Amino acid sequence: MTENFALQLARWHEFVAAPNAAILDELLADDVKFHSPFVWKPKEGKASATMILMTVTDVFQEFRYVREILNDFHWMLEFEAQIGDFSLRGVDIIELNDEGKIVDFEVMIRPANALQMLGAEMNRRLTVQVNKLQNYR
Amino acid sequence: MTENFALQLARWHEFVAAPNAAILDELLADDVKFHSPFVWKPKEGKASATMILMTVTDVFQEFRYVREILNDFHWMLEFEAQIGDFSLRGVDIIELNDEGKIVDFEVMIRPANALQMLGAEMNRRLTVQVNKLQNYR
Repeated sequence: MTENFALQLARWHEFVAAPNAAILDELLADDVKFHSPFVWKPKEGKASATMILMTVTDVFQEFRYVREILNDFHWMLEFEAQIGDFSLRGVDIIELNDEGKIVDFEVMIRPANALQMLGAEMNRRLTVQVNKLQNYR
Repeated sequence: MTENFALQLARWHEFVAAPNAAILDELLADDVKFHSPFVWKPKEGKASATMILMTVTDVFQEFRYVREILNDFHWMLEFEAQIGDFSLRGVDIIELNDEGKIVDFEVMIRPANALQMLGAEMNRRLTVQVNKLQNYR
C-alpha cells in the first residue's frame, strides 16, 4: 500500500475512533456514492454520506474492525458491533480515486435480525434529523 | 498473489461458472465454517457448506463478480445477481489456510428486500433437501 493511501486509511480509523464530520469532509469526494444495506439505489453527495455515517457510528455499540483486505484503491474493512441485544458483522467496501478521496462507499450487514434492528433505528434517527432540517428552512 | 493461491482462486471461479460439488470437495477444508447472511452462528463442516453453496448458486440468476480485493489468505469477492425481480449485491469473504484450503466462508447481501427474498427461497429449498435426506435414512 503506498504512503498516500496508508495515510487516508489511518485518517479513516481516526474517524471511527472519534466520529467527527470534519474528517469526513477531508476524506469524502464531493460526489461520493453511498450504497446502504437497505436500498438498492445509492445516495449521492457528501452531505448524505456524512449524515448517514455520523448517525450509524452513534448507533453501533462496541464497534471494532476485525479483518481488512486492502489494495491502494479498494479497501474491504470488516467490523463487528452490537445493536441492542444482537451481535452483527458488516463490511465497508471503500473505493478511492487517484487523489485518495473516497468516491464509493458500500455497506453490508449480517445477520438478518441485526440488519432489521439497525434499519428501524436508522430510520427513526434520520427522520428526526430530516424533520429538524426542514423546520429550520 | 502467490501461484498456489491464484490457482485456488481460478478453481473457485470454475466452480461458480459451472457449480459442481467435486470442486468444492477439493477447495473446502473439512472443518470449514460457513457464516450465512441470515444467522449469527456459523455452520461447521464441509457437508453443510457444500449443500448451501450448491443451493445458492442455483437460486441466483445472472450471477457475476464485480470487484475483487485479494491477498494470499483473504479474498473479498463482490458479486451482483438477480433474484426474482430484485437486483442484489453481495460479498464472499473467504479465508484460506496454509495449504490453500478454504477454512472460513462468510456471505453478506444487500439490499434488505433481496436478502429477505433470498432467505425465503433458501429456506424452502433447504427444507426440501433435509426432508429428502431424512426419508432416506
